[in-house]
Amino acid sequence: MARRSTKMTEERPTSGVGTTVTSYDVARHAGVSQSAVSRCFTPGASVSPRTRDRIMKAVDALGYRPNMIARSLITKRSNLIAVIVANLGFNPEFTGTLSRLFAARGLNLLFYTLDREDDADRVIEQLWQYRVDGVVSAARLSERHIEQMTKRGVPVVFLNRVYDTIPVNSVCCDQAEGERWLVDRLWAAGHRRFGIVAGPDASIVSRQRVTGASDRLATLGGDPPRLAIGDFTYDGGRAALRALAVGGSGMPEAVICANDMMALGCIDEARHGFGRRIPQDLSIVGFDGSAPGRWASYDLTTVRQPTHVMIEAAIDMLVTRIEDPSTLTEKRVFSGELVIGGSATIA
Amino acid sequence: MARRSTKMTEERPTSGVGTTVTSYDVARHAGVSQSAVSRCFTPGASVSPRTRDRIMKAVDALGYRPNMIARSLITKRSNLIAVIVANLGFNPEFTGTLSRLFAARGLNLLFYTLDREDDADRVIEQLWQYRVDGVVSAARLSERHIEQMTKRGVPVVFLNRVYDTIPVNSVCCDQAEGERWLVDRLWAAGHRRFGIVAGPDASIVSRQRVTGASDRLATLGGDPPRLAIGDFTYDGGRAALRALAVGGSGMPEAVICANDMMALGCIDEARHGFGRRIPQDLSIVGFDGSAPGRWASYDLTTVRQPTHVMIEAAIDMLVTRIEDPSTLTEKRVFSGELVIGGSATIA
Repeated sequence: MARRSTKMTEERPTSGVGTTVTSYDVARHAGVSQSAVSRCFTPGASVSPRTRDRIMKAVDALGYRPNMIARSLITKRSNLIAVIVANLGFNPEFTGTLSRLFAARGLNLLFYTLDREDDADRVIEQLWQYRVDGVVSAARLSERHIEQMTKRGVPVVFLNRVYDTIPVNSVCCDQAEGERWLVDRLWAAGHRRFGIVAGPDASIVSRQRVTGASDRLATLGGDPPRLAIGDFTYDGGRAALRALAVGGSGMPEAVICANDMMALGCIDEARHGFGRRIPQDLSIVGFDGSAPGRWASYDLTTVRQPTHVMIEAAIDMLVTRIEDPSTLTEKRVFSGELVIGGSATIA
Repeated sequence: MARRSTKMTEERPTSGVGTTVTSYDVARHAGVSQSAVSRCFTPGASVSPRTRDRIMKAVDALGYRPNMIARSLITKRSNLIAVIVANLGFNPEFTGTLSRLFAARGLNLLFYTLDREDDADRVIEQLWQYRVDGVVSAARLSERHIEQMTKRGVPVVFLNRVYDTIPVNSVCCDQAEGERWLVDRLWAAGHRRFGIVAGPDASIVSRQRVTGASDRLATLGGDPPRLAIGDFTYDGGRAALRALAVGGSGMPEAVICANDMMALGCIDEARHGFGRRIPQDLSIVGFDGSAPGRWASYDLTTVRQPTHVMIEAAIDMLVTRIEDPSTLTEKRVFSGELVIGGSATIA
């Protein structure tokens, strides 16, 4: 005997119940207005806790399924945000923060990891299919993909990824500034033979950090640093230190790593592979401010990225652009924070 | 001039294009059948790479948006799986594996983190709204929530969470067996004064591991172990070791930790806080098989959970239950693998 709603957002329950339960049925059962029921399922809309409680009891009793998906066909908003991360070199602490901050705004997170660049095609197809409202990407996407998103009106904000050739929204840590701090302090303490452990060639973050450090060394009049390439992992850091140690002038006095994880590998390889003391024989610094860098076995000197602030900013930028697609493209760059540990002799 | 499809899966593009683009337009433009276009957007359906390429070019040229969401109203399948994890004590390596293995089956991952148990209400509401096909939970949910899912026909598989009172699908590592292995080897090496570092009271995994170790010690005729409680974190492990060191018989000879992260904290606290040598003065073991446990500074003796196998099994169970809701409830328990490192003297 349910009164039928004409709204497209109503739909038959998929199982168990023979009649269609609508938001009007829920409203009558709970003794509230239909618009209160509707508000109850609209992210950010105001409903008193008491009303909400009554509505949810009625929802349970009747087996009502509000249908956000059908609603998205009308409102053109799915409240879904896709988060794309690269598997390698991604800070897992980001994921939890993203999920929490999106949830606080009533947004839901569709999570994708890219193992290789060409995985992106598959992921981008899914974005159209689920009509995501926006994308936060901590992985590099091709210009073609970015242009597709622009064309389809899906705003994207990149975390720590910048593009020279096309306008994209991004939130970054100031990689070059952080490296200048590290180089200046190591230089002032007397280090002159530098080694640099870069990440994969394809990584823009790595290139910015490595260039930042090299440029500063050149400005200070230092010799060109020796370079080894890692893959952002602990094991990659160990292998890179072995590569730096062979040839020419032998082990560098200071090793600058493009991320924390490789710096931890360098520390362990220096100690356990070469029997060196840290920092007396060798200074090692990283970049990220990851949790293991703070562990007593490492006590890493590094630059901490303001993760929480960066993610808040990315979400702000995204939500603004979802609400007003004419908002201009913007790049925000935040300073990191120098963290001084016992892994380097600095001045 | 587009020929109109009568299918509900077709819909006007939301921006930029004035006419409705249907799958028939895409088919004509690409010179393929409409069913090929449809298959191209059906997870798991077969399309040759060449056909797919032609279709995707036509999709781009015409601005076609296949609509998985509208399609889900007909098929009753959203191809969305919710993954729920607890923020504390969750192994971040799980997330990447889950995302990859779901993607391989054409399923998409809606990601939720729970800071507190009562966050679950908010998350569960979202599950109804997005009509997820199923749920994988590595967080504890209340019996009420599990019953709601059963009632609404949304299958759920728990990772490392079991319930005594209601039937739930779960995939677990055999916690008690792993602890027996560790206790037996420590005992055989002559350790008699044991300490145990438990996780939070609410953690079932912790309780199973602690009970497994204690029961085995009792069977062997050992004294009851001293107990300290941590929060699954590195810092929690450090504090727990300090708690174990005070009073009675002083520092234990062997410390069994309910996860790896706390074991790493114990190792660092023993070395850097108490100046003890590991394993000569003190044996420390963990449970999980996390990456940092393999780092040279720790070389942790632990039990490795078969993460990949467990997640594969969870996805299998879930997909089976989505396809046939009458499938019986099942619990699968996998043996872990003893990893012998240098953090403990064992026989």
